[in-house]
Amino acid sequence: MGKLNYLIESQQFDKELLFTLFKRADELRESKANDSLKGKVLATLFYEPSTRTRLSFESAMLRLGGEVISTENAKEFSSAIKGESLEDTIRVISSYANCIVMRHYEEGSAKKAISVSKVPFINAGDGKGQHPTQALLDLYTIYRELGKIDGLTIAMVGDLMNGRTVHSLSYLLGKFSNIKIIFVSPENLKIKDEIKEYLTRHNVVYEENSNLSEVLPIADIIYITRIQKERMSENDYELAKGKYAINSLNLGQIKLTSRIMHPLPHVEEIDLPIEVEENDKRITYFRQAENGVFARMALLEHLMK
Amino acid sequence: MGKLNYLIESQQFDKELLFTLFKRADELRESKANDSLKGKVLATLFYEPSTRTRLSFESAMLRLGGEVISTENAKEFSSAIKGESLEDTIRVISSYANCIVMRHYEEGSAKKAISVSKVPFINAGDGKGQHPTQALLDLYTIYRELGKIDGLTIAMVGDLMNGRTVHSLSYLLGKFSNIKIIFVSPENLKIKDEIKEYLTRHNVVYEENSNLSEVLPIADIIYITRIQKERMSENDYELAKGKYAINSLNLGQIKLTSRIMHPLPHVEEIDLPIEVEENDKRITYFRQAENGVFARMALLEHLMK
Amino acid sequence: MGKLNYLIESQQFDKELLFTLFKRADELRESKANDSLKGKVLATLFYEPSTRTRLSFESAMLRLGGEVISTENAKEFSSAIKGESLEDTIRVISSYANCIVMRHYEEGSAKKAISVSKVPFINAGDGKGQHPTQALLDLYTIYRELGKIDGLTIAMVGDLMNGRTVHSLSYLLGKFSNIKIIFVSPENLKIKDEIKEYLTRHNVVYEENSNLSEVLPIADIIYITRIQKERMSENDYELAKGKYAINSLNLGQIKLTSRIMHPLPHVEEIDLPIEVEENDKRITYFRQAENGVFARMALLEHLMK
Repeated sequence: MGKLNYLIESQQFDKELLFTLFKRADELRESKANDSLKGKVLATLFYEPSTRTRLSFESAMLRLGGEVISTENAKEFSSAIKGESLEDTIRVISSYANCIVMRHYEEGSAKKAISVSKVPFINAGDGKGQHPTQALLDLYTIYRELGKIDGLTIAMVGDLMNGRTVHSLSYLLGKFSNIKIIFVSPENLKIKDEIKEYLTRHNVVYEENSNLSEVLPIADIIYITRIQKERMSENDYELAKGKYAINSLNLGQIKLTSRIMHPLPHVEEIDLPIEVEENDKRITYFRQAENGVFARMALLEHLMK
Repeated sequence: MGKLNYLIESQQFDKELLFTLFKRADELRESKANDSLKGKVLATLFYEPSTRTRLSFESAMLRLGGEVISTENAKEFSSAIKGESLEDTIRVISSYANCIVMRHYEEGSAKKAISVSKVPFINAGDGKGQHPTQALLDLYTIYRELGKIDGLTIAMVGDLMNGRTVHSLSYLLGKFSNIKIIFVSPENLKIKDEIKEYLTRHNVVYEENSNLSEVLPIADIIYITRIQKERMSENDYELAKGKYAINSLNLGQIKLTSRIMHPLPHVEEIDLPIEVEENDKRITYFRQAENGVFARMALLEHLMK
Repeated sequence: MGKLNYLIESQQFDKELLFTLFKRADELRESKANDSLKGKVLATLFYEPSTRTRLSFESAMLRLGGEVISTENAKEFSSAIKGESLEDTIRVISSYANCIVMRHYEEGSAKKAISVSKVPFINAGDGKGQHPTQALLDLYTIYRELGKIDGLTIAMVGDLMNGRTVHSLSYLLGKFSNIKIIFVSPENLKIKDEIKEYLTRHNVVYEENSNLSEVLPIADIIYITRIQKERMSENDYELAKGKYAINSLNLGQIKLTSRIMHPLPHVEEIDLPIEVEENDKRITYFRQAENGVFARMALLEHLMK
């Protein structure tokens, strides 16, 4: 099993490690109190805000008996403004903490960081790059909900070009067998070639289909993402918005055994009454967010113990 | 005794619960170390800054052996900006923490939050709505200082229209017997009718008197609040400022057994030399702030144990 | 030994206390787990951002088993904006915490704070005033690296007029014997007279020399600081920048037993390849940053136990 010293992209996980982490996440969920990281300090260094991701990591660390130092304004970090290199910042922070979690606005910054960090490092999103712990919690959720990963048909819906979580999850699915991915997106937000090439190399069957109605009845997992209004023309947005939403009209097309996932936050692309969101077993995204804490607990333990 | 699962307004407290919390606050003040909330995580979610309130809650939680995750910029919470509903944010945060404390700029947001929260929830101020833990610590302070609440004459002075703390404390006083409240405010900042009606329904005698000099000699508690300059004409402000201040000239009118309280921060409405502020037993507001930590400890324990 | 109740300037340390703190810092570095401040709460109150200093203090407190409440936006502290005095803020915060660390933009604010604080207080930089814990960690670093302080020749290079760390360290060196300080700075950024007078009174020999090449071969410690571009003309900056930098060209002039220190962040005034920064024993500034955590642990223990 590939013991990790840092995590910058989802490809680093091997199958054995994934199942070890999933099993540990299940155990941690059941355990009342845990002090496995007592005496350890996690630094959460956020160069762009992501309160949800930051609080999820911090909750995970604290629930393991560890401690947290944090900045949600690292971009205005006095030393960054004064012209300090990211490498120097990481060198210093890694003498304050036993592990660093970093969110950065620049693709490639995670690689820079691990070149100098003296302590385990986790990429919590670097620009248009990856967000590997989101992929970890997504896959953990699929496994918990359906009891398996091999053999599933997974629809990825929405902005597939910019969606960091879609990329990281696709790379992770490349580790499994008999996976079929169906990409559903507006014409101008299609999945990148490099991901399609990766999937081909890893024997993952994929297809692109712009018609959501054809996809809903056959997918085991519908992984829907936000159409990012700010990245397209108003016209394109209006079209995409109506076309790529789950609502009361098309919910019936989804199998009762399937699951609807979303990295959150969701806006109009999920438009269901509260009673449905709270009671329909297919609605998985709030359980998915909760799973994030347990998956991150397992990962933090793996890196720091 | 009404066990609470959440706290959104001061009317929720019954008398028995209040005295139980006061007794526990007294015990917690004396105890050296406490681990009653070990393993629990509190989320402090502040949509507008209130460093004082936030730090008071966080200190309370940490002194009970618990842990804290926090954001003081929830308004710029990435998901709020992206259009996520408050309900969804609360759903997610409630899977990260064992209790949520929220300050929000919109009246009614606390009610929205409890409609979905899976964990205990505390309203730390919602717009022009309530701030029930301030009322709790205010009442605890009155009880500690004077040994009783029934039968007291309480003057509320300053901006009674906008003062959230005045509203929450009035509602709480409605639970007690033989209370007399004297409202002292500029003409344009008078107490709202709905509070007067509530007091009448609960047999609290109240009167309005714009002459502070008549009130000071008879009040057991002078609860003074900041005249909020930003909410009135400059002319009105200058008048109100002089008229509704405690200073060296009128301090002598206050009984030696009375107490001067203020939710803080104070500006010109209290204008006394430092020696007086530090040595005159009637000056209660710094003890009042300190009481806040113990009252909140008792409340957090009540909600989470 | 002078037991401290607060720390506002480096002159407060006596020699015996310094060595006691250094010894304790060494012990804390070796110890695995420590709970000496369990149950205690530190408040970090930053009126201007200094993520590095804040995180160093917070890591120190957490590693001693203590807890932290924190604000990095104290300037926008709701009560400061509303016109509350610093004294009142400190009065209130000192009832929330067992110790306060404050960074403030105004010289003299630390003195104001200790006039009212009910708990130990540490100045983490007040305007152009002092930053005494930086001096503490600087001196601890010199002691660890060279095994002694008496008798050393110390070059201070860069912006000596505005550099708060240079001032605090100079005052601290006044406690030792046979020290020689060489001040190397651009003409317009020379060390202040009051520091020179202090050194004379304390029998510290000093000289000023604008030629770095003459100084490098004889200094045991080269303490270099950032030339603060924002404080001079572009012309002056270009001259100073080239003249007062350590780079591959002049590194050879420095004795192999000497040490290059910097309070960080550094920009062009240190311009060395990464391999040199990581492998040349003379490069001390990253170890120096790490020493800060242990020196602050020793100080926090001293103040709170």
